[in-house]
Amino acid sequence: VQPRIVEIRQNVLRKNDELARALRARFLTDRVLVVNLVSSPGSGKTAWLERSLGACRTRGWHTAVLVGDVATDNDARRLAATGVPVRQIGTGGLCHLDAQMIVDHLRDWPPRPLDLLFIENVGNLVCPASYDLGESLRAVLLSTTEGEDKPLKYPALFHSADVALLTKLDLAAACEFDHAAARQNLQAARPGIRVVETSARTGQGLDDWLDLLDASRQQVLAAGPAPPR
Amino acid sequence: VQPRIVEIRQNVLRKNDELARALRARFLTDRVLVVNLVSSPGSGKTAWLERSLGACRTRGWHTAVLVGDVATDNDARRLAATGVPVRQIGTGGLCHLDAQMIVDHLRDWPPRPLDLLFIENVGNLVCPASYDLGESLRAVLLSTTEGEDKPLKYPALFHSADVALLTKLDLAAACEFDHAAARQNLQAARPGIRVVETSARTGQGLDDWLDLLDASRQQVLAAGPAPPR
Repeated sequence: VQPRIVEIRQNVLRKNDELARALRARFLTDRVLVVNLVSSPGSGKTAWLERSLGACRTRGWHTAVLVGDVATDNDARRLAATGVPVRQIGTGGLCHLDAQMIVDHLRDWPPRPLDLLFIENVGNLVCPASYDLGESLRAVLLSTTEGEDKPLKYPALFHSADVALLTKLDLAAACEFDHAAARQNLQAARPGIRVVETSARTGQGLDDWLDLLDASRQQVLAAGPAPPR
Repeated sequence: VQPRIVEIRQNVLRKNDELARALRARFLTDRVLVVNLVSSPGSGKTAWLERSLGACRTRGWHTAVLVGDVATDNDARRLAATGVPVRQIGTGGLCHLDAQMIVDHLRDWPPRPLDLLFIENVGNLVCPASYDLGESLRAVLLSTTEGEDKPLKYPALFHSADVALLTKLDLAAACEFDHAAARQNLQAARPGIRVVETSARTGQGLDDWLDLLDASRQQVLAAGPAPPR
């Protein structure tokens, strides 16, 4: 059975890559920065997004959020409370989002104008690594409570990320979090990765994160085709 | 592609179930309690196992550990430092352990006598749910740092568990952990599930956990065939 499964899986990933390429081209044409947030369950993706949405509004950016979850729409409801357009993707038990789900949920949504689309992936450090969603920026969250070794133990996901957000810095001391080891392991998994230290509770790192998003937005605006006149 | 993938997956799971049934019968014949530990990455499976192995030794039980990891043998090395026989299962990127891996790694191992075999699964709240490893007891860990909502968001895994270990209780206050909500969500996902509050740092819950293991051991001893004379 094994070689057949490998072959099937390769076909699935090949098809996903094709769809993701088309999505990426479309996002560039639409001049939208798309950010895919990946992490373990409970690393604080939703809490950090709540903070980020408010900060984006302050900068005058129009945002929307796609939220993937195996079950419940808890996170979608939390995020919708910010007033930003939010759409839930129920994966029906599946352990990751794929490009087809993104295509399906963007048919007549979100409302324009749109500068920035966040995608909150399923909490999982393994499976989402292989599924390109057409994003321009993949951000992996690593909380101070889950241990500095995670980039070494789940290298594929960390290697696939463009930026790492260290989260729950307010708990770092209580967890005896080793900052140097975490940064060393992140660099080992993904040499040169940018790292932002954050806390959704205190707001630490929010300005740095927004500046980083702004720089990525400028790249998208520079790379995209001229807007229609 | 989708229906074909569903069919393939069902075949894989069916084959896994067959292997797991054979494993379970063998463990009963051998009078070994097998415990499958599942959780998010960073919930404290390894730290709690380190504690458990020492406590099992105090009770005179012979233990061994199979450790599954996507990459690195960090956890296996930590556990081997306790002096207990430990074997690493590298999943080669796969997001869960399956029964075939257990069969393969138990061919000429562990040394006898053996009372209790712990299996530390890959850190993942989705995929390990579907893979029976022939265990008699499935224990899901939920740390106070990852949020009380996880049993609702990953219902299949929590529903499949026999016991829940709340971990990192020493961090509960710092995380404003809501004990009542966590217990309510656990019972919603798996009505009647036994819950033990633990801390690998302080040793809280270790006696309750060992008593629970002892009760499960007695069931295995009672259920198994008479030992050969």
